[in-house]
Amino acid sequence: MARPQTDIEAGREHLLEVVDDLVRKRGAADISMTDLAAAAGMSPSNLYRFFENRDALLEAVAERFFAEKVKIMEEVTAADLPVREKMFQFFGRRFELMVKQYEAEPDLLKSYLEIGQQHFEVVRGYVDLGDHYLALIVAEAMEQGYFEGLSIDETVSLINQMMQCYTNPEAIIYIGTAKLKVEKLARIVDTVFVGLNSKAFEVPAVETHIKIVS
Amino acid sequence: MARPQTDIEAGREHLLEVVDDLVRKRGAADISMTDLAAAAGMSPSNLYRFFENRDALLEAVAERFFAEKVKIMEEVTAADLPVREKMFQFFGRRFELMVKQYEAEPDLLKSYLEIGQQHFEVVRGYVDLGDHYLALIVAEAMEQGYFEGLSIDETVSLINQMMQCYTNPEAIIYIGTAKLKVEKLARIVDTVFVGLNSKAFEVPAVETHIKIVS
Repeated sequence: MARPQTDIEAGREHLLEVVDDLVRKRGAADISMTDLAAAAGMSPSNLYRFFENRDALLEAVAERFFAEKVKIMEEVTAADLPVREKMFQFFGRRFELMVKQYEAEPDLLKSYLEIGQQHFEVVRGYVDLGDHYLALIVAEAMEQGYFEGLSIDETVSLINQMMQCYTNPEAIIYIGTAKLKVEKLARIVDTVFVGLNSKAFEVPAVETHIKIVS
Repeated sequence: MARPQTDIEAGREHLLEVVDDLVRKRGAADISMTDLAAAAGMSPSNLYRFFENRDALLEAVAERFFAEKVKIMEEVTAADLPVREKMFQFFGRRFELMVKQYEAEPDLLKSYLEIGQQHFEVVRGYVDLGDHYLALIVAEAMEQGYFEGLSIDETVSLINQMMQCYTNPEAIIYIGTAKLKVEKLARIVDTVFVGLNSKAFEVPAVETHIKIVS
């Protein structure tokens, strides 16, 4: 794909701001190309110069929504930091960004989350990208002896589950920032580094046989 | 409050089944006393013999929804089990119950979750009750040297956050039972027992200074 011309890029950026305004006004209701053209004061055929169809528009909306998070993940994984601090920043910086976005415009974030649920096929790539970057940090930690006896995939999945409150923007809404604190996030990262390995079952002094009795 | 008569109790139980049917048909839409009386084929004044008002009805719906979970929490905390197995069963048995409920009637569970969100004041008591029982297990573990340097409240809050995927029924819907497994839950419980304490920061061999660089 050829690199878009600068005026096309500027036009797209402006149109994505018009999308923001439409979402502010109308919530998560579907936005058609006709709606967007009208709101931007241009003809539908002109709009198609910027986004060839509605899918391209949705992808651009998602790209813009995730841009800062992707940048954080790139920066953190490339940084020269101890691996435990890397993981803390990997989750902590994105969490703080979400809190900032939520506090600035809670309804706008909620509406975009709803749009994301309606079009999860567009969001999935970003979820996978997050797993990819987390796997890089996990692999680095494994070289230092952490997460012994577990595979990278198992470790990524378990960490994602334990960190769910700090990665799922819905959690900010239903748990609230009074309970979700970056200090707690740091404590959970530490718990993960110290406690997550296949030997946990072998720690003495407690009964390790785990089963469900019905 | 006097113990309700048996025919009143039987009538309530029947009416709560009628509520299930109304929720199956209409989803989370508000159910008025008039609606329920009509669906049950009784006069509104007769309905008030069983539930003195709509709040009493909502409380009865919540009580029935949480009854089995409360029973599990009572049983597990009273059981003569090693504390780590107690915590595993505390979360694992309720998780398996939710999965069973979800797989039996996903739409009914979703609708009740929505109703619970609309009337969170009724749900809050059950959330607090869960914290109370978890605090009993945490206190028992602390007597055995776990969670060193943390308060009971801090520990309960951190464990709730790390176990969120397995306690929040919404997670079954948006993460799915392909990823949420009782074996992973057991691994997270072990991670919590081994890794959650105030000394995690002091573990050698990794940089422990944690801050966000912006």
